[in-house]
Amino acid sequence: MGKVITLGRQFGSGGREIGKILADELGFAFYDKELINKAAEASGIHRDFFENNEESVTGNFFHALTLGIYRNNNRLAEMNDISINDKVFLIQSDVIKKAAEEGDAVIVGRCADYVLRNHKDCHNVFIHSDIEERVRRATEEYGLDPDGLKETIIKIDRKRSSYYNYYSGKKWGKAVSYHMTLDSGVLGIRKCVDLIKELVK
Amino acid sequence: MGKVITLGRQFGSGGREIGKILADELGFAFYDKELINKAAEASGIHRDFFENNEESVTGNFFHALTLGIYRNNNRLAEMNDISINDKVFLIQSDVIKKAAEEGDAVIVGRCADYVLRNHKDCHNVFIHSDIEERVRRATEEYGLDPDGLKETIIKIDRKRSSYYNYYSGKKWGKAVSYHMTLDSGVLGIRKCVDLIKELVK
Repeated sequence: MGKVITLGRQFGSGGREIGKILADELGFAFYDKELINKAAEASGIHRDFFENNEESVTGNFFHALTLGIYRNNNRLAEMNDISINDKVFLIQSDVIKKAAEEGDAVIVGRCADYVLRNHKDCHNVFIHSDIEERVRRATEEYGLDPDGLKETIIKIDRKRSSYYNYYSGKKWGKAVSYHMTLDSGVLGIRKCVDLIKELVK
Repeated sequence: MGKVITLGRQFGSGGREIGKILADELGFAFYDKELINKAAEASGIHRDFFENNEESVTGNFFHALTLGIYRNNNRLAEMNDISINDKVFLIQSDVIKKAAEEGDAVIVGRCADYVLRNHKDCHNVFIHSDIEERVRRATEEYGLDPDGLKETIIKIDRKRSSYYNYYSGKKWGKAVSYHMTLDSGVLGIRKCVDLIKELVK
């Protein structure tokens, strides 16, 4: 069973970059959405499971989640085709659990803090930054068009928040949802990396 | 001008204790609500100011705060006698600013992060913990009666949240309001102290 760092982050806060540096320097495996999806596709472990158990799985999970929606945020309208989303979430969760069992890992996004809530050596971090600083980073470092970028960033974060609140039952961006949160705009990327290293030491 | 650490905290999270250890080990001055009030009373610097400028001060400040209330949380009903509260806030703010100018300091509560928003070397931290852990701490370490304690803690935190949101215009307990937030229940007091030392290094 590995030591795990999960990273939630506002779009443009540099959370993914912090995760990559941490993984490099600590010798941990690195997982983000793309890599988790690739692993899920490659494994194929869930294909049969879902084909044979579709009824019962979506039934139970859907029921639990529907209750969750109404309890949490009344955002049913934002979740299109719940059964497919829920399947994807389950498959991703399985990949995340497998990664955490196999060895040390940094995992960005995908509610990994919730998925690994029973994993002993798991450290949950959230990275945020001032919106102006995130626009700057997204423009200069991700090469995005600054036109309308602030609105796009706010929209992406609203989706992340919705996704996190829906699946984890916790509140995205609230201090109590994480072991540590850091302002990468004020502290800088390097300081964030050092603080997370101190956290997991 | 000193280096300052401000600490917001949930009741029973050990935030004050963390602040005291930090102040001891770093050789910083320590201020909490009691000490700030004592300093305000002893200084008497504001007495004349308020007696001579009451009209204009409460007028402007009240106007700004009233707007703030409606923008922030519609909690007008929770704020009794606004003009006296506002005066106390102004006097406390003055003590906090003076303390920060005079030397290195750890300041617990009183919206010090907001009061010192233009202070260059200021590090804003929030400490939280699971409610069960806070009940345990409040019982074992502060010697409080466990009967109805959970409800009391929730009520105290609601007041702190109200006070903070009203005066700072930020949201108490949201990651974006602070440079760093820490879960003292998961991490322990010692780890929190070490992480804050790393933050201000």
